[in-house]
Amino acid sequence: MNSSTHGNTQIVLKRHPEGAVSPDDFELVATGMPEIADGQVLIRNLYLSMDAGFRHWMTEGAGDNYLPGMQLGDPVQSMVLGQVVKSRHPDYVEGAYLSARCAWECFSVLDGSDLAAVIEPEPGVPLHEYMSLLGPTGMTAYFGLMQLGRPAAQETLLVSAAGGAVGTAVGQLGKIHGCRTVGLTGTEAKAEWLRQEVGYDVAISREADPDLAAALSRDVPDGIDVFFDNVGGATLDTALGQLSERARIVLCGAMSQYEQERPEPVFNTWELITKRARMEGFMFSDYADQFSAAAATLAGYYRSGALVSFNQVYAGIESAPQAFCDMMHGASRGKCLVDLSEA
Amino acid sequence: MNSSTHGNTQIVLKRHPEGAVSPDDFELVATGMPEIADGQVLIRNLYLSMDAGFRHWMTEGAGDNYLPGMQLGDPVQSMVLGQVVKSRHPDYVEGAYLSARCAWECFSVLDGSDLAAVIEPEPGVPLHEYMSLLGPTGMTAYFGLMQLGRPAAQETLLVSAAGGAVGTAVGQLGKIHGCRTVGLTGTEAKAEWLRQEVGYDVAISREADPDLAAALSRDVPDGIDVFFDNVGGATLDTALGQLSERARIVLCGAMSQYEQERPEPVFNTWELITKRARMEGFMFSDYADQFSAAAATLAGYYRSGALVSFNQVYAGIESAPQAFCDMMHGASRGKCLVDLSEA
Repeated sequence: MNSSTHGNTQIVLKRHPEGAVSPDDFELVATGMPEIADGQVLIRNLYLSMDAGFRHWMTEGAGDNYLPGMQLGDPVQSMVLGQVVKSRHPDYVEGAYLSARCAWECFSVLDGSDLAAVIEPEPGVPLHEYMSLLGPTGMTAYFGLMQLGRPAAQETLLVSAAGGAVGTAVGQLGKIHGCRTVGLTGTEAKAEWLRQEVGYDVAISREADPDLAAALSRDVPDGIDVFFDNVGGATLDTALGQLSERARIVLCGAMSQYEQERPEPVFNTWELITKRARMEGFMFSDYADQFSAAAATLAGYYRSGALVSFNQVYAGIESAPQAFCDMMHGASRGKCLVDLSEA
Repeated sequence: MNSSTHGNTQIVLKRHPEGAVSPDDFELVATGMPEIADGQVLIRNLYLSMDAGFRHWMTEGAGDNYLPGMQLGDPVQSMVLGQVVKSRHPDYVEGAYLSARCAWECFSVLDGSDLAAVIEPEPGVPLHEYMSLLGPTGMTAYFGLMQLGRPAAQETLLVSAAGGAVGTAVGQLGKIHGCRTVGLTGTEAKAEWLRQEVGYDVAISREADPDLAAALSRDVPDGIDVFFDNVGGATLDTALGQLSERARIVLCGAMSQYEQERPEPVFNTWELITKRARMEGFMFSDYADQFSAAAATLAGYYRSGALVSFNQVYAGIESAPQAFCDMMHGASRGKCLVDLSEA
């Protein structure tokens, strides 16, 4: 089926997930092809990015000052890479590639807001990388580590959700900058993959080391210099107890918390005083003015082989709910993408 | 009694306080006059500084990487201002004034370590101010606010323990830098004093507003830009829920926590991500290389009347236990000092 002649397909939020998100929380619906007005463009979506952060806004009443909560019946929000098929916007020509905060659907209407950015693929870089290593994921890893983490050579960099999209990139960027890298993950199989394929110096799994504090005492005896945290909650609390002086904690996400009714408590904020440490949150979108310089740097690492992109690609829009749930629950490795380009 | 001819007097830790510290946790003992060796000086202590932070290290087993815990029978640690009476150290001449991390005692032996610094009183500034506004307290307020808080004009600055030594200074420094200042304190009488005497724009007391979240929603509707926190725990958690974007949280102390068996939990670290906010701890001693410039700035504010010093002075070493307990439990206002100069 070529959707462009038959209408649009969307995945909508059928019910607000409670606790662990399930494919049953979503529904595939066929809708009409949207029309565009002046100042808008129609894009055909080629890649959907599965991002844990959006889980937060799926919960009932979860809207905050950053984004409103998702509404039932609306297509599920997502970062998306698409190609312009029709334009009534002066900045976006037909055929151009755009990334934006958009939705799980085959076609979308954009007006240039919502983080919309034109993608100009560099030679030697596959298009899907602009939804992965050279897209929001890579930017998140790069700006979080370089602007907030500020790692120095020989420092110990701890990364939680180390096998995820951001975690695989942060670990490799840490090695490029001379750090000793320690990754946290769920299973020993994934830990072995982190050591062998992703290049972490040390990988700690919950499976082999249920007592994280003891594992850190063993593997990071001199304390954590930079903690890039994608997980929050008890993991963050434990890491706060093992900081070195002037440690930097980069708060990127709180994956362990999105499916909790109430966030897990953190007890160790006092440690930030005695260690004179800094804990800071960010969003990749804060650094939009530096995206092209960062993309050039990352593309250079990518082409040289210093930075490998780990992608787990699901095919077809109907696979998005399962892809998202796999990503949320540690069943995928690296960046989780849904490929609509063959539809 | 002139102690200098009869020996030394100390207040020692008689038992590790559990929960609220009490004067009964301390004991006054008479000891011999200490002798000095090469590289040491004997100082006669003139002012003892009562600092909440030391409560942490009074608890049994509380030592950490910053300071060891206090031992039973040892004189209680404190910041102290004294005058050299005998010197076998090339840097400290007889008659010089020194401040140092020292102890509740009439005479002390120093070797130049433990934050020891020579005080050169400026004209128009009483000596005791070097243990208050121009000493560790003023330095804590100044460096915490200016280096970590970085307040801009028109921003809202929230200060906890606003009626304490650091809090009274931070509120006034915030006004000097054009902030709208909001102080948190225990009683309505103290809140009124903060408004009338200390110059806070708004003061919120636990007595009048037991629901801090509601009070902040009312008095800080646009969110907190800078939070200078001396209290920690639930107060910190509540404030984290009402940050503005790019807020800075200065972690100076955790007064509410020192007397708890286990620290109170903080749930709102996720807010640091959506608000792209920063939370950072510090110690005044980190800025030793900038003390003289800061002291000159603070002395200028002091002499011009822009910065008023609020001191509550207790007389005689035997008053130190009560002074410390009053300071810990909100019964004192401003800087709490013990004056030994008349002994």
